[in-house]
Amino acid sequence: MTPTVAPISLFHAVIPAGGIGARLWPLSRAEAPKFLHDLAGTGSSLLRATWDRLAPLTGDGRIMVVTGRAHRSAVEAQLPELADNNLVLETEPRDSSAAVGLAAAILEKREPGVVIGSFAADHVIRGTRFFEMAVREAVLAAQSGSIVTIGIRPTEPAIGFGYIKATQAAGIVGAPTALTVDEFVEKPTQAVAEKYLASGDYLWNAGMFIAQARVILDVLAETQPQMYAGLMELAEAWDTPKRALVVDRVWPGLTKIALDYSVAEPAAAHGNMVVIPGEFDWDDVGDFASIAKLHSNGHKTDLAILGESARVLSDSANGIVVADSGRTIALVGVKDIVVVDTPDALLVTTIAHAQRVKNVVDALRLAGRDDVL
Amino acid sequence: MTPTVAPISLFHAVIPAGGIGARLWPLSRAEAPKFLHDLAGTGSSLLRATWDRLAPLTGDGRIMVVTGRAHRSAVEAQLPELADNNLVLETEPRDSSAAVGLAAAILEKREPGVVIGSFAADHVIRGTRFFEMAVREAVLAAQSGSIVTIGIRPTEPAIGFGYIKATQAAGIVGAPTALTVDEFVEKPTQAVAEKYLASGDYLWNAGMFIAQARVILDVLAETQPQMYAGLMELAEAWDTPKRALVVDRVWPGLTKIALDYSVAEPAAAHGNMVVIPGEFDWDDVGDFASIAKLHSNGHKTDLAILGESARVLSDSANGIVVADSGRTIALVGVKDIVVVDTPDALLVTTIAHAQRVKNVVDALRLAGRDDVL
Repeated sequence: MTPTVAPISLFHAVIPAGGIGARLWPLSRAEAPKFLHDLAGTGSSLLRATWDRLAPLTGDGRIMVVTGRAHRSAVEAQLPELADNNLVLETEPRDSSAAVGLAAAILEKREPGVVIGSFAADHVIRGTRFFEMAVREAVLAAQSGSIVTIGIRPTEPAIGFGYIKATQAAGIVGAPTALTVDEFVEKPTQAVAEKYLASGDYLWNAGMFIAQARVILDVLAETQPQMYAGLMELAEAWDTPKRALVVDRVWPGLTKIALDYSVAEPAAAHGNMVVIPGEFDWDDVGDFASIAKLHSNGHKTDLAILGESARVLSDSANGIVVADSGRTIALVGVKDIVVVDTPDALLVTTIAHAQRVKNVVDALRLAGRDDVL
Repeated sequence: MTPTVAPISLFHAVIPAGGIGARLWPLSRAEAPKFLHDLAGTGSSLLRATWDRLAPLTGDGRIMVVTGRAHRSAVEAQLPELADNNLVLETEPRDSSAAVGLAAAILEKREPGVVIGSFAADHVIRGTRFFEMAVREAVLAAQSGSIVTIGIRPTEPAIGFGYIKATQAAGIVGAPTALTVDEFVEKPTQAVAEKYLASGDYLWNAGMFIAQARVILDVLAETQPQMYAGLMELAEAWDTPKRALVVDRVWPGLTKIALDYSVAEPAAAHGNMVVIPGEFDWDDVGDFASIAKLHSNGHKTDLAILGESARVLSDSANGIVVADSGRTIALVGVKDIVVVDTPDALLVTTIAHAQRVKNVVDALRLAGRDDVL
């Protein structure tokens, strides 16, 4: 594929491809997590779409994927361009600080001064041109030493996302839209979300982080010194025959903590975190309600059907059906319904309760029903 | 099994076991119709329960089953006591006048003067003692020459049943509760059903008919003379080697008409139809809403589960789940839901829309999807 834009120099993307997406059970499973599914109906998995969005910005051979050993073959099948030395396999999940931190340490050792950008493998973005503009500006801002995130301009008072408060221009040369991050805030209540939206001072936290690898590692050295030491040891051994031995010894002991807490919030507290407002459509596709919204293109009267739509009979004007079992599915007189039909498990809920699907996964885990998780 | 009551002399029961039960799709199918299922959760199919209810009243060898050829082995498996000469196999369905009329003609030829009672194979009755009392009284009334039905005292303004208007005592010796049938009325609207209930003049039509076989045949001779002639020819040949030949020639030409229209309504118009009020619980289990009601024992806050309940996770307080596929089923935040999960088809609807399930069957038939019908 010929890139339509020139790659950004000294830039390397990282895609942490982890997380099961429990609110998308029974479609998303331990063996077939969210990022491997085509949830946007584009014909590509979310992982593949993430790759295709980044490749023109990084150039060839400059996207690293961090994923679990169990997903190796699925990831390689979806990303044939992925070189072996850009595939980091986790022996067990240790959350995003370890995943992105290890990528930063390996890449900084290979290419001192590199800027890395971490982008989730399982989000949906529409408006690639605006995404590219935001990443380019973010990389420029990162070259000044800041840690940069791309925040999404809210279009509604969403309660399923974290928010970023940012009121002051950062004044960074080459990054005119960059704002200093005042603080990160957790998922709000409806009333608070409405206040955020009305104020104009808040952006959605899309979990994108762009910084010099060295800067990320420096923050980790301060906030998570043990993890930092482990990551340095791993990076030292990574491109040598000692890799496997060191991984087995060091990786399982790394603290499980999200990059938001180990790096982003401390950096914001020190005034070193900036945000580029992104003018593109973004969704973390966190639950079936958001998939339904993606597929209905904003029409509240469309029933979204993923999978074999020819097997679905419905008089229902809205909601979502995932037809993934080959069976005939009939819906009669149900509203805002969510039906997810897989070969060994069936979920029936409503758009309004889509967030509560995680409770089912918790209950199944407690009951030892790993066969359907 | 020892009967707890003495059989009624000169009485022979007939069970027409036909009808797919389209409103119970996808549980009820052409290959596995409603009467073969244990819809009441008693451990017996509806057909077997019907047999067990009648056997003490008829005595051994005096229940005839009329069913389709396709169901022969299933019926024989459920009713090992059924003798070959009491199994009437239809080469194709011709509705209840032909089915019950043929039974009447065969039985009258074998045993002139016999009283027959026709009872659907797929209804649920609770209160066997009251059922027995009603049948005994109905047989006595039938011996006076009347055609007798057992009407159910309404407990609510149901719109899914036909009604029987009866205001005058019939004055039949031995049948003190018998009332003359003024008229049969079709399924009413809600407002009309409420009026019926309030008036006390109406009973539910449970489709039970008790009469001398000869009397039924005489009415058919008048209202359906061609059918009558065919039935006579069939009965003449039935217990002879000519049966198969005559069946192949005559049966397919018989008019498809319900016994209600060919016999009951004309008899009522002539003042020869009486009704015995039944004081037992009865339901025709016509849709999933009525199955849910049966299983919740009147508690509106119970979710009814048929099948493998261990595989159902639910926070839903009402509705019904039929778990017939071996899959895990999770319900989150759905109310009054109907989920019917079978190996090749899934239905999701609500209690309020349960009657509309027949539309799905119609749509599937139009689409040529006989594989799931």
